[in-house]
Amino acid sequence: MKKRIRIILWILLGTCLISKGVDAQTIPSISEASEACLECHSQLHPGIVAEWKKSRHAMITPTEALKKPKMERRISTEKVSEQLSKTVIGCAECHNLQAGKHKDTFDHNGFKVHIVVTPSDCATCHSIEVQQYDKSLMSHAYGNLTRNTLYQDLINSINGIQTFELMKTTLKSPDTETQLDSCIYCHGSEVKVKSVKTRKTNMGDMEFPLLLGWPNQGVGRLNPDGSKGSCAACHTRHQFTIEMARSPYTCSQCHKGPDVPAYKVYEVSKHGNIHSSLGKGWNFNAVPWTVGKDFTAPTCATCHVSLIVNEDQEVIVERTHQMNDRSAWRLFGLIYAHAHPKTPDTTIIKNKAGLPLPTELTGESVGRYLIDIKEQEKRKATMQRVCQSCHSQYWVEGQWSRFENTIKTTNDLTLTATKILLMAWEKEAAKGLAQKDSIFNEAIEKKWVEQWLFYANSTRFASAMMGADYGVFANGRWYMSKNIQEMFDWLEFKLQSMPEKKDKKEKK
Amino acid sequence: MKKRIRIILWILLGTCLISKGVDAQTIPSISEASEACLECHSQLHPGIVAEWKKSRHAMITPTEALKKPKMERRISTEKVSEQLSKTVIGCAECHNLQAGKHKDTFDHNGFKVHIVVTPSDCATCHSIEVQQYDKSLMSHAYGNLTRNTLYQDLINSINGIQTFELMKTTLKSPDTETQLDSCIYCHGSEVKVKSVKTRKTNMGDMEFPLLLGWPNQGVGRLNPDGSKGSCAACHTRHQFTIEMARSPYTCSQCHKGPDVPAYKVYEVSKHGNIHSSLGKGWNFNAVPWTVGKDFTAPTCATCHVSLIVNEDQEVIVERTHQMNDRSAWRLFGLIYAHAHPKTPDTTIIKNKAGLPLPTELTGESVGRYLIDIKEQEKRKATMQRVCQSCHSQYWVEGQWSRFENTIKTTNDLTLTATKILLMAWEKEAAKGLAQKDSIFNEAIEKKWVEQWLFYANSTRFASAMMGADYGVFANGRWYMSKNIQEMFDWLEFKLQSMPEKKDKKEKK
Amino acid sequence: MKKRIRIILWILLGTCLISKGVDAQTIPSISEASEACLECHSQLHPGIVAEWKKSRHAMITPTEALKKPKMERRISTEKVSEQLSKTVIGCAECHNLQAGKHKDTFDHNGFKVHIVVTPSDCATCHSIEVQQYDKSLMSHAYGNLTRNTLYQDLINSINGIQTFELMKTTLKSPDTETQLDSCIYCHGSEVKVKSVKTRKTNMGDMEFPLLLGWPNQGVGRLNPDGSKGSCAACHTRHQFTIEMARSPYTCSQCHKGPDVPAYKVYEVSKHGNIHSSLGKGWNFNAVPWTVGKDFTAPTCATCHVSLIVNEDQEVIVERTHQMNDRSAWRLFGLIYAHAHPKTPDTTIIKNKAGLPLPTELTGESVGRYLIDIKEQEKRKATMQRVCQSCHSQYWVEGQWSRFENTIKTTNDLTLTATKILLMAWEKEAAKGLAQKDSIFNEAIEKKWVEQWLFYANSTRFASAMMGADYGVFANGRWYMSKNIQEMFDWLEFKLQSMPEKKDKKEKK
Repeated sequence: MKKRIRIILWILLGTCLISKGVDAQTIPSISEASEACLECHSQLHPGIVAEWKKSRHAMITPTEALKKPKMERRISTEKVSEQLSKTVIGCAECHNLQAGKHKDTFDHNGFKVHIVVTPSDCATCHSIEVQQYDKSLMSHAYGNLTRNTLYQDLINSINGIQTFELMKTTLKSPDTETQLDSCIYCHGSEVKVKSVKTRKTNMGDMEFPLLLGWPNQGVGRLNPDGSKGSCAACHTRHQFTIEMARSPYTCSQCHKGPDVPAYKVYEVSKHGNIHSSLGKGWNFNAVPWTVGKDFTAPTCATCHVSLIVNEDQEVIVERTHQMNDRSAWRLFGLIYAHAHPKTPDTTIIKNKAGLPLPTELTGESVGRYLIDIKEQEKRKATMQRVCQSCHSQYWVEGQWSRFENTIKTTNDLTLTATKILLMAWEKEAAKGLAQKDSIFNEAIEKKWVEQWLFYANSTRFASAMMGADYGVFANGRWYMSKNIQEMFDWLEFKLQSMPEKKDKKEKK
Repeated sequence: MKKRIRIILWILLGTCLISKGVDAQTIPSISEASEACLECHSQLHPGIVAEWKKSRHAMITPTEALKKPKMERRISTEKVSEQLSKTVIGCAECHNLQAGKHKDTFDHNGFKVHIVVTPSDCATCHSIEVQQYDKSLMSHAYGNLTRNTLYQDLINSINGIQTFELMKTTLKSPDTETQLDSCIYCHGSEVKVKSVKTRKTNMGDMEFPLLLGWPNQGVGRLNPDGSKGSCAACHTRHQFTIEMARSPYTCSQCHKGPDVPAYKVYEVSKHGNIHSSLGKGWNFNAVPWTVGKDFTAPTCATCHVSLIVNEDQEVIVERTHQMNDRSAWRLFGLIYAHAHPKTPDTTIIKNKAGLPLPTELTGESVGRYLIDIKEQEKRKATMQRVCQSCHSQYWVEGQWSRFENTIKTTNDLTLTATKILLMAWEKEAAKGLAQKDSIFNEAIEKKWVEQWLFYANSTRFASAMMGADYGVFANGRWYMSKNIQEMFDWLEFKLQSMPEKKDKKEKK
Repeated sequence: MKKRIRIILWILLGTCLISKGVDAQTIPSISEASEACLECHSQLHPGIVAEWKKSRHAMITPTEALKKPKMERRISTEKVSEQLSKTVIGCAECHNLQAGKHKDTFDHNGFKVHIVVTPSDCATCHSIEVQQYDKSLMSHAYGNLTRNTLYQDLINSINGIQTFELMKTTLKSPDTETQLDSCIYCHGSEVKVKSVKTRKTNMGDMEFPLLLGWPNQGVGRLNPDGSKGSCAACHTRHQFTIEMARSPYTCSQCHKGPDVPAYKVYEVSKHGNIHSSLGKGWNFNAVPWTVGKDFTAPTCATCHVSLIVNEDQEVIVERTHQMNDRSAWRLFGLIYAHAHPKTPDTTIIKNKAGLPLPTELTGESVGRYLIDIKEQEKRKATMQRVCQSCHSQYWVEGQWSRFENTIKTTNDLTLTATKILLMAWEKEAAKGLAQKDSIFNEAIEKKWVEQWLFYANSTRFASAMMGADYGVFANGRWYMSKNIQEMFDWLEFKLQSMPEKKDKKEKK
């Protein structure tokens, strides 16, 4: 009897420990430098210190981490420096790292501390992930947006301050703070050291660098050490839990608006429904992540990022932080959906008309900058391996065929809206490219933007992830259909109310 | 002491088992046929096999299931055939069932397998639920939509491809893939065998039927065996957990768009708030479902579907899969909210003007096709028994009175929008019934559709489920009020810009 | 070995009890009066009785509650009357309290029962919270809305019934039931005794008071005892769990619409993401609430209401039920965002033009009714103490600077829309103040309302809580920019179509 009791007890205890996601082990040591940080900062910022204590970083040393079988490892470097390998990853291990490289490094109680921990720092242990991320569109999100003259114009038209005087509206360029509060919040800011500022503290006067563009955790942040991106965008500091990066809520931070309603679509899809209904029983912490055992429906990470295996530990898909190498199509229409760009830096792209767009205004892809069919087929095959964990090949092909048809029809409906706009420009009902005017500032142009940025995008995401109503009444086909009629109506009204302009022209 | 330890241990162990929703028992056997399936398919599709293993189907035989007290049973048939009763419900038990009836049956390694498991298959054990479901509007969702000429026109206007040439817009009929990706996704497709296709597999060349309209899990799917619907729409395969069917997220798959925002309303209602805040501690698996003990606020299923009892096991409401037999009113306005139709096949309905609608264009109900007051009272009484589990009779009456008033006022506001549209047609500002033109294709008509399909519906759902803002600023009364003014403005502008038309008419 | 087993067992058992949030103790007694209630009502309304049984009210007597260290107490009164102190808080303890004060008190089986339990009743044990709540804008939400002539006009324009006859729209005032179903649902109703009604029950004929304005749990409800508010708005009856009041879903009941999308913004913010991803492991029941230990990201309550401490039990912020005393700015624009009003009764406010608004139509604050900079600084400092639990001072200052800049720019963009409207009124393209017409009833006016009520508000909430897309494409700056162009277009079209009016004027 006693033996039986003991066995049951160990099972129960084991369950407790496993549910914490931690193997039983002795508590590992914290470096002296990190202990020094904690002495003050656990008082000053108790929240983040407590978060960190709950993190894997606080529980395991790189040496221990490297002992795990390769597939179970959460670090991808093969060797960690002697200095870093014996203690857990505390404050100093990240914030004192490579001090010379960081322009925001400052002297702080005898330590060289930098504020902004960057992918270059994380690469010390997570080198492969950072290399992959460098190839992602996300890591270039700042430059791709702000160094594209057309997108810059779109930003100005949204974030600028319009005024109204003497029956005219005028647009003032947006201020920096508005940019940081708006597009740049997700795309990432350029973080620069402005000056050094002295501040009174409990420890006496102390100097701190004053940063421009801070705070920011955007995916394409330009860091003071010259690196791009912020791992904390998804791996939220200071708990850095893989559970959170795999949670669809993380992606929703940036992918929920009408321009890119991926999370909203997921939420009402069968997959999202399974996650919402049953996900509380899943194991979001396991590495590798076993389909069926650890989870019974995909989250965003399952399809786009994570290392997925079956119960025999056979790899279904390898982990990737390039994010788009399982995606054949770039659904997000600029202005039309198209094959993904070859390089993550899209500022090199120019269409035949000289516009910095991956398609012509009339929809044709600018082929030489985009991946070819062969690469598309490869990416599709990778993605479909995930699908086929639960669905038959015919099932997947049927779904895929609808999806690619929807890419085509939504592009067609964007073209129709574009043609109405081109007519408006031609008839001078609005001012466009020929008049060297912004193509985003007038009411009719804004309706055109919504056709592709909101409605065509929504319809495509709904098709890709089977969230049907986002392809119908919830910013889907209903709105594309209505928007075309409203643009058409506007053009008719406008042309009828333009006798004066016509007269003026005739006089010329 | 030892005895005490043992008791506590058994309590703890019991808690573990109960939390898994499974009574302690010997592992039941899997049929030879299903074992044969699993041999390959647990490799090919590890996800669904793992899901099935977590299902009740994989854990209990029909014989065991029938031993339970009637109220706790999850199967409603009184007797299961000898052949099916001794093993758990595995792959073969469903996919090999009634092979002769299924047009998608094919020879597969010596078995007669069909792809699409249908309500007729499920009825083998769940006969009463399938009978009830056959009486639901949901099971007829395909035909009711696609065989109604008016709704068909609405679909075309949404899913069709509009083009713009020579200052005119033209509408092309939608292709089949778009339909499947759009309305049909929720309503259900017609699944037909197109041909047989040979495919190379690891086991050599194999033949599979190629299905049209597949994949699809819509509630009104027309199946290759002639049956209607898909139980998997709510009882998601292959875990089939009752927990999920009772979860509001399941309903949100189809009931979240602006046309039928039931889930969105629920989410911000007091009931939804209790569910979101405290639902993680509820027992979603208990049969019967005990109010207060298992849950402390209703989900969609509580009010509309489930068998609900009190702690003395007295029945508050019986289980129903007709879905609308606790609902006195059909809130979803077509074009106006009205009493529920008598029969689930609504294609028989015609109003006085000959339109296939349950009300006239001016709001009067087409009484002979709709349930009478007596039936409405009966349904209301059933629903109110659920309400009164937690609310006093006066509370419920007060709520109900507001709700019926809102049905009336939203119908009134639909009428106002309709009158503006009728005037537009009369004055030939738009082309309508008299001109034998679509009543859904022009901008003003689309505004009219939003009045009833989005705003009046949203307001009514908000009233029914106390999700107030969906009756005010979130697609509620604010939008009805604004839409009327915008339709009115449009009509005024249009009439003023129509001198040519007027002249032409005068010349005639 | 045995000892070890025992220790583990007690740990496990302790975990079970702690997870129930209840200290092990003997089951406390229920008063005779409450026992009498339960005798019938546990049959009549099993749901609420079961809820109550799960509540802290059912588990602990005031005497026991008062024994706790002050910081852990959930009751704020120092002494509870002899009569109430020895039993748990059951039905009678609340519904029989202060019978003479409640106009809805009625004789019920020998007891003086009132239906509507009010803040005055709750104050018996929770006196400080009720005192604070009396100072909140929420407790005045009924009068502040319904006794402001301008807001009353806005309500009428939304809830009234518009009709269309003879090319004119007419507005009928809304009926009472619509008001209760709409704005009043959240703001709170005026609950009055209409009459006494006799109803047949299982116990024979019984008399009950018939209440007007019932049911309602709005935050500013006017109660039959003259008190204001409903604690149950957030502390949902009859479980009254602090877990629920701290849950963001509770706030979403009223703060999710496009006018005040606080919950929507929170949901996609980093804080909301942490809550959604990891919140299931948090302790929502602890009093006081320890940052880092009990939770690792704030919910609404953390920043605006709760008593927050660090792990040394040092107070970071005191509990408040005034709600706005950590808020320097009233983000909700009426019509512009502004400093919070000094007094919770805002019906005393009048601007220079005599309108009951805290700002002029052109944006200037009506200073004498609003808190001054010193009070703003104090509130800001309180709020920032919460921020600094996890963020450095510079981080917080950077965030705050953007936030205040956004208040300014959104006010600027409201002004631009207002100027277009003023021009429309001046040119008689619409009828406004000068014409003594409603400023909310015409299409152009409704567009203007959306500028501040939807888009500027959304942008400000997004800025305050870092939910970026609600400041860009999701009802944010994109819509402000588009709305200005559409208002401008409308004005141009309208002026061009107004020759008749001009002629008429000239003739005068």
